[in-house]
Amino acid sequence: MGKVILDMAMSLDGFIAGPNGADVGLHDWYFAPAGQVAKSDAEVVAESINTLGAIILGRRTYELGEQQDGFVDNPHTATHFVLTHEAPKRVAKGNTKFVFVTDGIESALEQAKTAARGKDVAVGGSANNAQQYLKAGLLDAIQIHLAPILIGEGIRLFDHLGATHIELESTRVITSPRVTHLLYRIIK
Amino acid sequence: MGKVILDMAMSLDGFIAGPNGADVGLHDWYFAPAGQVAKSDAEVVAESINTLGAIILGRRTYELGEQQDGFVDNPHTATHFVLTHEAPKRVAKGNTKFVFVTDGIESALEQAKTAARGKDVAVGGSANNAQQYLKAGLLDAIQIHLAPILIGEGIRLFDHLGATHIELESTRVITSPRVTHLLYRIIK
Repeated sequence: MGKVILDMAMSLDGFIAGPNGADVGLHDWYFAPAGQVAKSDAEVVAESINTLGAIILGRRTYELGEQQDGFVDNPHTATHFVLTHEAPKRVAKGNTKFVFVTDGIESALEQAKTAARGKDVAVGGSANNAQQYLKAGLLDAIQIHLAPILIGEGIRLFDHLGATHIELESTRVITSPRVTHLLYRIIK
Repeated sequence: MGKVILDMAMSLDGFIAGPNGADVGLHDWYFAPAGQVAKSDAEVVAESINTLGAIILGRRTYELGEQQDGFVDNPHTATHFVLTHEAPKRVAKGNTKFVFVTDGIESALEQAKTAARGKDVAVGGSANNAQQYLKAGLLDAIQIHLAPILIGEGIRLFDHLGATHIELESTRVITSPRVTHLLYRIIK
């Protein structure tokens, strides 16, 4: 049975995006030109491409990706489940397969697990989705790609959780000049 | 010339203490019984004992330390400069040398640098002091001892900074089951 992994890039001060959802360089390690990607970063990306059977993302993240490159060069061939209130009329042109889910996080996860056929499911942006999955206890692991930057303001990943006490087990740390990849198992 | 290092333990979700300043296990790696300290954690502690010539802390952190063990077993022999509005009438009993500074962060840093005689100066709790030193551009490095736990509410380390853009260079990552020690140089 595959795992459900929250997978997000975050600044050292806890933000996944700037004040208006702006990308502030947190994904530079991921989008670096081919020759400039650190070996360890490339391995982390390759691992997720190989092990993920489905990806859940928010509508805003989908829109951003569509604006940036239309998912044309998306190396992830696993089906993307987009949590949204309403499916868009036009869908991004690239080869990525999108399924729009309008009936909530549990439905999205159920569909993603079916599509994944035993492989892992990643939960990516938005922060709001991440918080919902975390609160609902639906995650098995958390992978944070910690960027060496402080931005001071923006959208926090770990916010609106209320008082909680979730113990984690650090299962792997991989570091490169651009990012530190922190992998945790959620102790249930 | 020694460096000025912000040195704090933080939960993965960015808190240095619980809602009422409560310790929520972020320092377990530091206070673990002698036989149970991971070798890498012990080395990080030994390094700071060897390289620090002065330590700056807040009044609350001082009070907490006094309540816990009165700094009796404090392995740090470097002088502790306590930022406060008013010096206390009684001082903690242990062997630690305390200097109470009532005229602000710059004065405390100047006194600490003099006392350090070329060794490093650590800025520890409170979060408020940390933020002031960060905003004033007085830090050279940041060491975060990242604890594998989410607590949801409490005192955030990186808060009230306003929109900023401070680039860091990851200079070292050391990990153990209890904590991941992240060392960054602030790029100026």
